[in-house]
Amino acid sequence: VTKKLLVLPGDGIGPEVMNEVARVVAWMGRKRGIAFDISEDLVGGASLAVHGVPIRDEVIVAARAADAVLFGSVGDPKWASVGFDLRPEVAILKLRQELGLFANLRPAKVFDALAEASTLKPEVVAGLDIMIVRESVGGIYFGTPRGIETLPDGTKRGINTEIYTTSEIERVARVAFDLARQRGNRVCSVEKCNVMESGLLWKEVVTALHAREYADVELTHMLADNCAMQLVRNPRQFDVIVTGNLFGDLLSDLASMLTGSLGMLPSATLGAVDEDGGRPALYEPIHGSAPDIAGKGIANPLAQILSFAMLLRYSFAMEAEAALIEQAVANVLASGLRTADIMSPGMAQVGTTVMGEAVVRELDKL
Amino acid sequence: VTKKLLVLPGDGIGPEVMNEVARVVAWMGRKRGIAFDISEDLVGGASLAVHGVPIRDEVIVAARAADAVLFGSVGDPKWASVGFDLRPEVAILKLRQELGLFANLRPAKVFDALAEASTLKPEVVAGLDIMIVRESVGGIYFGTPRGIETLPDGTKRGINTEIYTTSEIERVARVAFDLARQRGNRVCSVEKCNVMESGLLWKEVVTALHAREYADVELTHMLADNCAMQLVRNPRQFDVIVTGNLFGDLLSDLASMLTGSLGMLPSATLGAVDEDGGRPALYEPIHGSAPDIAGKGIANPLAQILSFAMLLRYSFAMEAEAALIEQAVANVLASGLRTADIMSPGMAQVGTTVMGEAVVRELDKL
Ligand SMILES: CC(C)[C@H](C(=O)O)[C@@H](O)C(=O)O
Ligand SMILES: CC(C)[C@H](C(=O)O)[C@@H](O)C(=O)O
Repeated sequence: VTKKLLVLPGDGIGPEVMNEVARVVAWMGRKRGIAFDISEDLVGGASLAVHGVPIRDEVIVAARAADAVLFGSVGDPKWASVGFDLRPEVAILKLRQELGLFANLRPAKVFDALAEASTLKPEVVAGLDIMIVRESVGGIYFGTPRGIETLPDGTKRGINTEIYTTSEIERVARVAFDLARQRGNRVCSVEKCNVMESGLLWKEVVTALHAREYADVELTHMLADNCAMQLVRNPRQFDVIVTGNLFGDLLSDLASMLTGSLGMLPSATLGAVDEDGGRPALYEPIHGSAPDIAGKGIANPLAQILSFAMLLRYSFAMEAEAALIEQAVANVLASGLRTADIMSPGMAQVGTTVMGEAVVRELDKL
Repeated sequence: VTKKLLVLPGDGIGPEVMNEVARVVAWMGRKRGIAFDISEDLVGGASLAVHGVPIRDEVIVAARAADAVLFGSVGDPKWASVGFDLRPEVAILKLRQELGLFANLRPAKVFDALAEASTLKPEVVAGLDIMIVRESVGGIYFGTPRGIETLPDGTKRGINTEIYTTSEIERVARVAFDLARQRGNRVCSVEKCNVMESGLLWKEVVTALHAREYADVELTHMLADNCAMQLVRNPRQFDVIVTGNLFGDLLSDLASMLTGSLGMLPSATLGAVDEDGGRPALYEPIHGSAPDIAGKGIANPLAQILSFAMLLRYSFAMEAEAALIEQAVANVLASGLRTADIMSPGMAQVGTTVMGEAVVRELDKL
């Protein structure tokens, strides 16, 4: 059976960097005889421009039917005036929720060749390798009641609700513990239990699950504000971090910026394993749609290419092919090519397309 | 009229570092003839140990009656079992709310003598001087409904509610704009308007207030996750940041850690100016109660001492005295004394008391 892939480039730099993945997909067909059944569709600002909505129902249906979704990015603020329910971000939020993609895996890894690109001192970040597991279909992102009300005196009130249930916390904590067993065997659970009851329940549930099923894994707890500090002070103290949707949003972006190479980092968002052993999954770069540099041909396509490698590994068990792509990317960096975001003295600055072509050339050599 | 000061050392390292402020207060009496009417009381873990509650009503009453409150820190996790309503943190949360201390001013400033203590490269943080204005009596910290419910199947559900009203947003934004006018004249308003309606209202209200009354100040908007990244990538792009309670908690801790000298940073939390021109105000170090080093005599007392300087300046308009203290602290650092947290090669490591005494000795020389 051919593997069904849905490609959703989105807006901003999404389409540009996705173009470079197409080269890698073509290479896989040509050199490794791997055929995908690929369909592509519009989401985010790109969908708004054509269809007037950030994502059509048929795209959700197609995503459900696909074996994996390769996502670009959404969020062009030029659509700010369309209103809250139509903003580009609804595309990714709906995909996460409708497909039940509850575990957002966000690695923050320093590439040896790029360690100097970090704003942190090399001795603080060399070899950094953190995995943040962020809950991604619950919490304040989705809780109700929510909205903006007008008060009797004409002023307004904005409301959002954070809700976490035992089962929501358990399933994402399981993903974190399972991942930790394949890595450094340490999980740090992050919440704000000294202020929020949802965080207090989070801590209780993670603690109980750990005692019941994962006592072999080292578990620590940290307040979210302290975690933000510790990531700056000594990021290498962490192995796996598990946290809620909102804290995960901030902390994973912070962690990825420590590496100095945000443009290099892929992510996976996974749902529950179904009866057939299948698992809904979406892969996207950590970086956003970067509308300020869109269309200029200077965006770094490597995070999107590495997201495709992650897809091969996690959704299709194509470990060999995933490793080939990662090796090709490492070789391109070793050869001295850099996009603007990771440029450093003595290296050769190139644009999006040259970088994508260079990856394929390195694949040819492997 | 003598100035009424309420001193609340709290738990952890709070009492130790507050002891060193006492030396400075005594010096002010001795050398500058400044008398304070000082009372002291227990809060946090220290109050729990004696009174079984984190803060007594009479302490709130005394705080209301005082011209200013000098606070230490609270949060010793050894009290985790007392239950959510009795945890040490309730002390500071209640003081903020009962006194209407809605604007938490958190400077992140690099001390020249300590720039090397940062984990960030010197060229990224040299001269850094950010002021974060954090809303501190609203948002998800205080919104209802909140709590933990048991569901029919015996599992649980934790709930918290984020609420922001037009007037809550306006009053804290005013503080930020007013401060900006005395500094770099730039305000960056931070929320998560692409996901939360409370953030959308935040952005709308700040934008409207700016257009109405502060058009001379430069205003930008940033998503909270991006702000976490930008603080790492290029922190000097910021002058004043204004944000809600929860984002402010994480972002201000992150920002202060960039400086490498968390143990040096004071903060102020201000309420509304009343008819007599008075203004409720509380001053506390940015750092927490650090129970892991409590009682060892190694905590850095300088943030607590600088909090007292900030108190003299903001609550009592004693600019000269505030400046004296700040100069004395700068001179102590220049003389090479360092507590463990800011220690670097070639400097002289000292404990809490020696550091406090050194400040007084420098004051004597001024
Ligand atoms: C685009 C936006 C809605 C999204 C989020 O906040 O989850 C993004 O920041 C992310 O982290 O994937
Ligand atoms: C002690 C705690 C409740 C407090 C907070 O979260 O506000 C602290 O972290 C702070 O930032 O002052």
